Amino acid sequence: MKISAVKKLFVGSPLATAQARHERLSKTSALAVFSSDALSSVAYATEEILLVLVLAGTAVLAYSIPIGIAIAALIAVVVSSYRQTILAYPQGGGAYIVTKDNLGTLSGLISAGALMIDYVLTVAVSVAAGVAALTSAFPGLYDYRVVLGVLFIAGIATVNLRGLRESSNLFAVPTYLFVVSFAGMLAYGIGRWLGGWETPAAPAAKVAMSQDLTVFLVLRAFASGCAALTGVEAVSDGVPAFKPPEARNARIVLAWLGTILIVLFTGITFLARHYHVSPRPEETIVSQLARLIFGGGLLYYEIQAVTMLILVFAANTAFADFPRLAYFLARDGFIPRQFGTRGDRLVFSNGILILGGLAALLILLFGGATHALIPLYAVGVFVSFTLSQASMVRRWVTRREEGWWWRWALNALGAATTGLVTLVIAATKFSHGAWMVVLLIPLLVALFLMIRRHYQDVARQLSLDNYEGPPPIDHTVLVLVGDLHRGVASALRYAQTLSPSAKAVYVELDPERTRKLEEKWGKWGLGVPLVVLTSPYRSLLAPFLDYVNHLLALGETHVVTIVIPEFVPARWWQHLLHNQTALLIKGALLFRKRVVVVDVPFHLR
Amino acid sequence: MKISAVKKLFVGSPLATAQARHERLSKTSALAVFSSDALSSVAYATEEILLVLVLAGTAVLAYSIPIGIAIAALIAVVVSSYRQTILAYPQGGGAYIVTKDNLGTLSGLISAGALMIDYVLTVAVSVAAGVAALTSAFPGLYDYRVVLGVLFIAGIATVNLRGLRESSNLFAVPTYLFVVSFAGMLAYGIGRWLGGWETPAAPAAKVAMSQDLTVFLVLRAFASGCAALTGVEAVSDGVPAFKPPEARNARIVLAWLGTILIVLFTGITFLARHYHVSPRPEETIVSQLARLIFGGGLLYYEIQAVTMLILVFAANTAFADFPRLAYFLARDGFIPRQFGTRGDRLVFSNGILILGGLAALLILLFGGATHALIPLYAVGVFVSFTLSQASMVRRWVTRREEGWWWRWALNALGAATTGLVTLVIAATKFSHGAWMVVLLIPLLVALFLMIRRHYQDVARQLSLDNYEGPPPIDHTVLVLVGDLHRGVASALRYAQTLSPSAKAVYVELDPERTRKLEEKWGKWGLGVPLVVLTSPYRSLLAPFLDYVNHLLALGETHVVTIVIPEFVPARWWQHLLHNQTALLIKGALLFRKRVVVVDVPFHLR
Repeated sequence: MKISAVKKLFVGSPLATAQARHERLSKTSALAVFSSDALSSVAYATEEILLVLVLAGTAVLAYSIPIGIAIAALIAVVVSSYRQTILAYPQGGGAYIVTKDNLGTLSGLISAGALMIDYVLTVAVSVAAGVAALTSAFPGLYDYRVVLGVLFIAGIATVNLRGLRESSNLFAVPTYLFVVSFAGMLAYGIGRWLGGWETPAAPAAKVAMSQDLTVFLVLRAFASGCAALTGVEAVSDGVPAFKPPEARNARIVLAWLGTILIVLFTGITFLARHYHVSPRPEETIVSQLARLIFGGGLLYYEIQAVTMLILVFAANTAFADFPRLAYFLARDGFIPRQFGTRGDRLVFSNGILILGGLAALLILLFGGATHALIPLYAVGVFVSFTLSQASMVRRWVTRREEGWWWRWALNALGAATTGLVTLVIAATKFSHGAWMVVLLIPLLVALFLMIRRHYQDVARQLSLDNYEGPPPIDHTVLVLVGDLHRGVASALRYAQTLSPSAKAVYVELDPERTRKLEEKWGKWGLGVPLVVLTSPYRSLLAPFLDYVNHLLALGETHVVTIVIPEFVPARWWQHLLHNQTALLIKGALLFRKRVVVVDVPFHLR
Repeated sequence: MKISAVKKLFVGSPLATAQARHERLSKTSALAVFSSDALSSVAYATEEILLVLVLAGTAVLAYSIPIGIAIAALIAVVVSSYRQTILAYPQGGGAYIVTKDNLGTLSGLISAGALMIDYVLTVAVSVAAGVAALTSAFPGLYDYRVVLGVLFIAGIATVNLRGLRESSNLFAVPTYLFVVSFAGMLAYGIGRWLGGWETPAAPAAKVAMSQDLTVFLVLRAFASGCAALTGVEAVSDGVPAFKPPEARNARIVLAWLGTILIVLFTGITFLARHYHVSPRPEETIVSQLARLIFGGGLLYYEIQAVTMLILVFAANTAFADFPRLAYFLARDGFIPRQFGTRGDRLVFSNGILILGGLAALLILLFGGATHALIPLYAVGVFVSFTLSQASMVRRWVTRREEGWWWRWALNALGAATTGLVTLVIAATKFSHGAWMVVLLIPLLVALFLMIRRHYQDVARQLSLDNYEGPPPIDHTVLVLVGDLHRGVASALRYAQTLSPSAKAVYVELDPERTRKLEEKWGKWGLGVPLVVLTSPYRSLLAPFLDYVNHLLALGETHVVTIVIPEFVPARWWQHLLHNQTALLIKGALLFRKRVVVVDVPFHLR
């Protein structure tokens, strides 16, 4: 009773199945729910490009402009590709469904494994980065960063357990605040630039030039900047959450998302170049830019606060999407079935809990340090991008629907580019942790296959085809007694209703006590015969198990039911004072064939 | 199977009850087992005296000689008193038994509570101090002190779980090594002194004189030195572990222990004075003394190593004694019954496990810091000393056996002295943590009384006096099904053997599945009627519970047995893939009156 009250307080009252349709998202709500992950990458993508280029000296930072344009084009390509996917898959499902459909199960599972890893990392990295932003502003909180990270995750998970509509309301505020604030900053910055405002000199970065500018370095900078793309797939995964017409609304929202992302990302990249901002360990690019444009003050702090907020809330995209992916995998039997059932509030509670748990574990293991997690981050996304777009390429070729040729070209370009980016990311970040993901994806696929094989095996064993019906049963009912009192008498009465030939079994540790028991038995034993077993090693268990084995050996159809009188005390702590023997017996007999253990409760006042 | 193999590896094969007598200890073994706690205090008792005296300046350190003599006398008094106790209580039991016998249950429980706290502290303090000695020698291990402490405790607990004789063999080595090494050091030190050897100047301590020499300060120094007495009661508690004649052998061993303790303690105290050693934070008195006498080198390191070892092994005394005290308390119904049963190896396994667990918890909570635990340490011992000796005083007066008068006087002196010491310790250490023990003792006593009241209450409820026999039973058997397959068919067959009127219950989440189930039911349902319940909230549980409640409401004699088909997978990890529903149902119905839940296992290959 108490537990259910606590659950209601945090999670809300149960919702009926018929209410499912009303939980759908409007376009503006959907944009808030599905875009925070993608948009939050604006906070660091430009910086990632500059951090690589600066290795060849500040003079080559101008290369960020063409790289930025290339990434913007890539965003456009990927977004366009996913808009085709939505059209072809209005039921949603994202990379897993699409890849499985067109390239087969194995590729689908690779996609799924890659995405699962990435969702967990999205939560961990976003929350860690958000907390880092917070603790940079309030250094006194630094010591509590791990606890803060775990609390943030618990908070987001709780909001998601309450259900989708309520969380979209909550998350709309920071997402739109972020978009408006950054758009305003860019407009103001560009306006001052066009107005001929003299830019103050940005503090020069002191960077030791360590590498020559090579094609590889430019590619690596490009690959690093591709962090901007993480999260754009979320909309196409979540199509069924939209209000009808689902596919149309989802395509519109994805177009909005792509446009906003391109504007913000290229805007930041251009302005960073114009204001001669270069990466410094102690201050982010966005922070430097905001400081230069607004000259510090309230608006600067507003930008920082909003950046912080969207980073933490970006984790929510994964909370909307991971449980959905888990649902599809569970439906197909690749992960445990309990991920396939909705909870009281029409959300996939198990997926939410496991995602929150794994992300919190990563925060704990890595001590809340963002930089240790980031190298693992983008590999998974680009693996699934590549497979998803390659699937669409295959689909157009196979189906040859009207106008397939230009769609095919678009997806082929996307697949080739994201494939290349995947290789570059894996190669340049391999030794920094990407190897873990490269290793984990095949392990997950193996696990998925193993679980499905198990379920198929069980289904075969349970199948009624060629079944001759269950074997007949020779039934023996035993009551294990240690004494004779009202609780035992009730258990004897119960055992008699199960079988008129029920027997009581007593393990003798002390002949004197046996004598006393036998005396009482004559009066209160209800006519149930008493079997006394001797025990040379003071063990209750061994002689009893021998006796049960003896009964089971009488024949293949023999089933032994063991009735154990168990106390149910009035208060929880009193459990510690009772039932140790019952627990022991149950533990010993838990998985024995043809043995059924029955606790008969005796309620104490 | 696997678990029992691991248990056998660490704990050994089970021993028969008849072997109990052979597990008895010879006198030399008993001295090793029961004396390490008492003797290990030689390592710090002198230092405790000097640490107090030095507050009034190094000039007054000479007071340590009369204080040492007084404590030696006190040891003699306490040891003599306990030798009377052994004579009067050859069945053993120590302070709890003796106090309960003579001063009543409440006093007995105060003794017991005080001793229990002290045993836990003995383990924690000894192990922490032993680890500290080790990490002083190897500073690289300092970071692992908590882990080391926990490992030491786990090791000692394992040895004790194997059984008493094996542990006495293991523990004989360090105890006798300690006695021989320290006796050798004292003999050599005194020899050189008598031979007129010029003592090198001990490094002068720089101590700010902060207090005047008052009677209170001298008393406090005396009280601190009384740490030397901790553990001397162990022999009288463990009399039944001795080879027969138990009482005679125990008295001899206690006399040996007292003599060795007095010799070593006064020897260290005298030599410390003669060699002008004063307490310094960075080096112990024993270490300074050994360094002066042996001039560093191998013998110095041997003394240090042996000191280290006996401190860790001292914890073993508590492991021999705590479970025995717990046994007596469990026998009288003051703590849970499971402390009253011997395990496979004739030891009280539960007591050993709980002592190890609590001590490890203290190590974890206090970060392995000895100095934080020491102020809590002696209060408990002296409370039990006082009560135990006061009991003997009472006994002599009551019985007036031959020669009672001088025994009475001896015990009265002991009781008065230890009572005074108890007050001094409690007063001088109160604010440093002794308050916790002063608070905890009455709490433990309250807990003991609460547990006994519960057992008495249960016994009354279970009593067959005026019992009219268990009420008759109207029995309904339900099989909860989610599908129909071989596992369910077996469960239906089983349910039919329990009651010919068994019914199957299905909660409908999707009408289409119900239709399919009903089709199969006709062919494979074994004629068991199928009840279909509807569920508007997709909850399996709520409609089923409503149905069960409805059945229970039919009459006070109604008992509902719920049969749940449960999978038993071939491998443990496969459990995660099944039986979630069964678990949920069991959780919901666990403590319902007149409801019995039966899992019927279906074994998968």
